[in-house]
Amino acid sequence: MNLTELREEVCRANLDLVGHGLVTLTWGNVSGINDDRDLVVIKPSGVGYDRMTPEQMVVVDLDGKVVEGELRPSSDTPTHVLLYRRFEGVGGVTHTHSRCATTFAQARMELPCFGTTHADHFFGPVPLTRPLSQRETETAYEANTGEVIVERFAEIDPVSMPAVLVAGHGPFAFGHSAGDSVVNAVALEAVAEMALGTIALRRDAPRLESYVLQKHYDRKHGAGAYYGQK
Amino acid sequence: MNLTELREEVCRANLDLVGHGLVTLTWGNVSGINDDRDLVVIKPSGVGYDRMTPEQMVVVDLDGKVVEGELRPSSDTPTHVLLYRRFEGVGGVTHTHSRCATTFAQARMELPCFGTTHADHFFGPVPLTRPLSQRETETAYEANTGEVIVERFAEIDPVSMPAVLVAGHGPFAFGHSAGDSVVNAVALEAVAEMALGTIALRRDAPRLESYVLQKHYDRKHGAGAYYGQK
Amino acid sequence: MNLTELREEVCRANLDLVGHGLVTLTWGNVSGINDDRDLVVIKPSGVGYDRMTPEQMVVVDLDGKVVEGELRPSSDTPTHVLLYRRFEGVGGVTHTHSRCATTFAQARMELPCFGTTHADHFFGPVPLTRPLSQRETETAYEANTGEVIVERFAEIDPVSMPAVLVAGHGPFAFGHSAGDSVVNAVALEAVAEMALGTIALRRDAPRLESYVLQKHYDRKHGAGAYYGQK
Amino acid sequence: MNLTELREEVCRANLDLVGHGLVTLTWGNVSGINDDRDLVVIKPSGVGYDRMTPEQMVVVDLDGKVVEGELRPSSDTPTHVLLYRRFEGVGGVTHTHSRCATTFAQARMELPCFGTTHADHFFGPVPLTRPLSQRETETAYEANTGEVIVERFAEIDPVSMPAVLVAGHGPFAFGHSAGDSVVNAVALEAVAEMALGTIALRRDAPRLESYVLQKHYDRKHGAGAYYGQK
Repeated sequence: MNLTELREEVCRANLDLVGHGLVTLTWGNVSGINDDRDLVVIKPSGVGYDRMTPEQMVVVDLDGKVVEGELRPSSDTPTHVLLYRRFEGVGGVTHTHSRCATTFAQARMELPCFGTTHADHFFGPVPLTRPLSQRETETAYEANTGEVIVERFAEIDPVSMPAVLVAGHGPFAFGHSAGDSVVNAVALEAVAEMALGTIALRRDAPRLESYVLQKHYDRKHGAGAYYGQK
Repeated sequence: MNLTELREEVCRANLDLVGHGLVTLTWGNVSGINDDRDLVVIKPSGVGYDRMTPEQMVVVDLDGKVVEGELRPSSDTPTHVLLYRRFEGVGGVTHTHSRCATTFAQARMELPCFGTTHADHFFGPVPLTRPLSQRETETAYEANTGEVIVERFAEIDPVSMPAVLVAGHGPFAFGHSAGDSVVNAVALEAVAEMALGTIALRRDAPRLESYVLQKHYDRKHGAGAYYGQK
Repeated sequence: MNLTELREEVCRANLDLVGHGLVTLTWGNVSGINDDRDLVVIKPSGVGYDRMTPEQMVVVDLDGKVVEGELRPSSDTPTHVLLYRRFEGVGGVTHTHSRCATTFAQARMELPCFGTTHADHFFGPVPLTRPLSQRETETAYEANTGEVIVERFAEIDPVSMPAVLVAGHGPFAFGHSAGDSVVNAVALEAVAEMALGTIALRRDAPRLESYVLQKHYDRKHGAGAYYGQK
Repeated sequence: MNLTELREEVCRANLDLVGHGLVTLTWGNVSGINDDRDLVVIKPSGVGYDRMTPEQMVVVDLDGKVVEGELRPSSDTPTHVLLYRRFEGVGGVTHTHSRCATTFAQARMELPCFGTTHADHFFGPVPLTRPLSQRETETAYEANTGEVIVERFAEIDPVSMPAVLVAGHGPFAFGHSAGDSVVNAVALEAVAEMALGTIALRRDAPRLESYVLQKHYDRKHGAGAYYGQK
C-alpha cells in the first residue's frame, strides 16, 4: 500500500467511525502506518467530517513531525506515533470519546469480560491505565498518554488486546490496519454498553468462563480460525 | 416455497434485522428451512450487509454440510441446524447480539414478563440456558450451544416461547419462518430494554398477572386470535 | 373537518408517531373523532406503516362497529371508543408501547413531575390505573381497559392531564385532535426517559414546586397563554 | 456581521441543534447578538423546524421588545436578553431540554467533571442554579430565570464555564456566537450522558485531577492553545 492508498484508507476509516455513531462534534481520530513503519497518516485536528478528503490527511514521521499536508495533525498525534514506535504488531490506531467506553474510563474501572461478544474481540478484560502525574500532564502530555498505555501493556499483547481505557479520558483501539482499529473501537463501545447494563442488573455478574473466552477468541483469531471467509 | 424463494426470504430477513437496528458490524444471522425440512438457507459468515444478495445465501443440509453456495455459512450454522432437527414447529431462526437481550444473557438472568408487550410475543419468562461445560465448549461448541438450548426446552414449547438466552452469550429467536423469527428477535430486544428499566425503577417489580399473560397471548396466537388481519 | 379529512389526519398522525421513534413493529395506534362525535377513524390492526394510506383507515361508530373500511380496526378500538364516550374534551387518542412510559407502567409507578418539560404538557404526575381483575380481563378486555382509565380519572380532567399509564401495559395519550394526542405521546416518552434518569441519580429527587407547575402549565395552556404563535 | 447575516447564522444554529438530536418537538431555541450588542436575533416561539427560514427569525432589543419580524419571539426571550445584558463575553445562547443535561437539572445536581471530554469544554463542574421563589415565578418568570443564572455566576466566568443547569428546568449554554453556543450545548449533553453512566457504575467516582482539567482547558482555549486549525 502506497501513501496515496493509505491516505484513502485513513480518510475512509475516519468517516466509518462517524457512520458507526462513535463521533460527537470532532471528537475522534484514526491513523494508519505505512508498511515501512516510518510514516503515519492521521486526521487533521478539529476539522469537520462532512467534507473530509484523503488530501486533508496529514503525514507525519515517527516523531510526529509533519512531512506532508497543509493542516495541523490531530492534537493526539504524539500518542499515536508513540504507540506505533512501541507496538510492533499495530498498524492502525483509533481514539474516540465514545459514550460507554469513556464512561468506564471515567469510573476508572477496567472493562470486565461478561460475554462472548467481548471474547470475540478482546482476550480478557480491557485494561485501564493509571492516571498521569501532574508532571506528566504539564509536559509532553500527549506523548505521556502513550507512555502510560505502553506501561500498562508491559505484560499484555496489543494484538490480542486491541484496546485500552485511559483513566479519566477515554478509549484507544488498535488493529492491524486503520480500518481494523475502527472495527475494534466499535466492538469496544458495544461491549461497554452491555457491560454497563450487566452491572446494573447484577453487581456480582460472573465473568465469562475462561475456556469460553479462549474458544471464542481462537475461533476468530487463532491458528484454526473458522469465522468469516478464507 | 422453492429454494430460490427461500434464499430471497432469508436474505431479506437478514437485511430486516439490520433495518431494525439489531446488528452491529456483522454480528447476527438468520436462517430458514424448506418445507421438506431437509435444507436450510443461512447467511454467509462475516459478510457485510451493505451488498448482501440472495445468491450469497448458503444452503446446507441438516448436518450443516454445504449443499449450494460459494461462501462459508455462518459459524453458528451447527446451532441452527440442530434447532431445526429438534424443534419441529420452528421454520426460522435468528441469532443476534442485540444489546439488551445480550445484557440479560450476560447477567445470567431469565427475562421476566413484566407487561403485555412481552405477553404478546412470549408466553412467560424467556428462559436462560445453563453455561456450557469446558468439554462442551472445546469440542463441537456450536452444536453443543444448540444442545443446551434443547435441554432447556425439555418442558417448554418453542412455538409459544420463541426465544432463549444462552448464558454468557446472547439470544436466539425462533419463528414459523425466517421473517417471523426476526419479528420475535425485535420484540425480544424491546421487552429486554423495558425490563432493564423496570428493574432499575423497582427491584421488586411485580410480574404480569397470569390471566393477563394468557389473554394477551391468546388474542394474538390462540384459536380465537383477533389481532391483525385475517 | 369531513370524514375524508379526518382519515388523512389520522393516517398522518399514525405516521408521525413512527417519525418520532415511538413505534416498534406495528405497536401503536392513533384515532380521531369527528365533530359530531359519532364516528371514530382509527388505524387498521397489525398493518405495516411503510405503505399506510388514508384509505386504509377504518371508520367505526361509538360501539366500535365498523362503518367504513375493508380492514379490521385496531384490536384496541374498544378502548378508544370508550374514552371518546366518556371524555368529552378529547378529540384524539394515541396508544403506544413507547419504551420509557411503558417502563413506568410495568413498574406500576405513576410518573412524577420532576421538571418544567413535564409541566408544559401534564398538570401533575401522570396517573397509573389499577390492574384489571381476572374477570375484567377475560371478558371485554379492551373495553375494560378503557373503564379502568375512566375510573382513574374520576377526579382528573383529561384535558389538563392528557395521558395515563395502564398498569402492566403501557401509555394512552389524549389531545384535542389526533395530531395533538401524538404530541402528548411524544412529550410523555421524553419526560418518562428523563424521570428514569432523575430517579437513577437520586431516589429522593424533589418534585417540581407546585407554583412552577402552575406557571408552566398556564403559560402554555391557560387563559393568558403566551407560548407559540397566536 | 450585519443583521441579515446574523439571521442566517441564528437560523442555521437552530437547525444544527436539531441535527445534533438535541430537540424534541419544538423544545429548544438559539439566539445571537449583533456586534454593537444592542440587537438580538432569536427563534420564533413554537414554530416547527422543518421549514424554518432566516426571515422567520425575530429581532428584539435588549428589553426583549420586537424590532423586526412578524412572529412572536421564543417565550424564553427575556432570559436570553438578560444574559446578554449581564454577560459581556457571551455572543450566543442556546436553551434546550436535552435529555441528560435536563436529568441533572431535575435531580438538582451540578454536573461533576469526571473526564477530559468535560474539561475540553467546561472549566470545572457545570453549576446548578437555586430554584426560583414563588414570587420570582409568578412575576417576570423568564427574566427571573436569567437573574438566578446571573446570581449563580457571581464568581464564575461564563466564557470558561459556558453552561448552566436551571434547577427543575434544564440547561442553557453560552458561546462567543450562536453556533458556538450550540457546540457547547452538544458537548454538555454528551458529558451529562457519560456522567449519568459514571455515577451508575460508581457512586464515588473520582473527579478529574485539577491539573488535567487545567491542561485540557488550556490546550483548547488558553493562550497557547494548539487544538484545531490556526
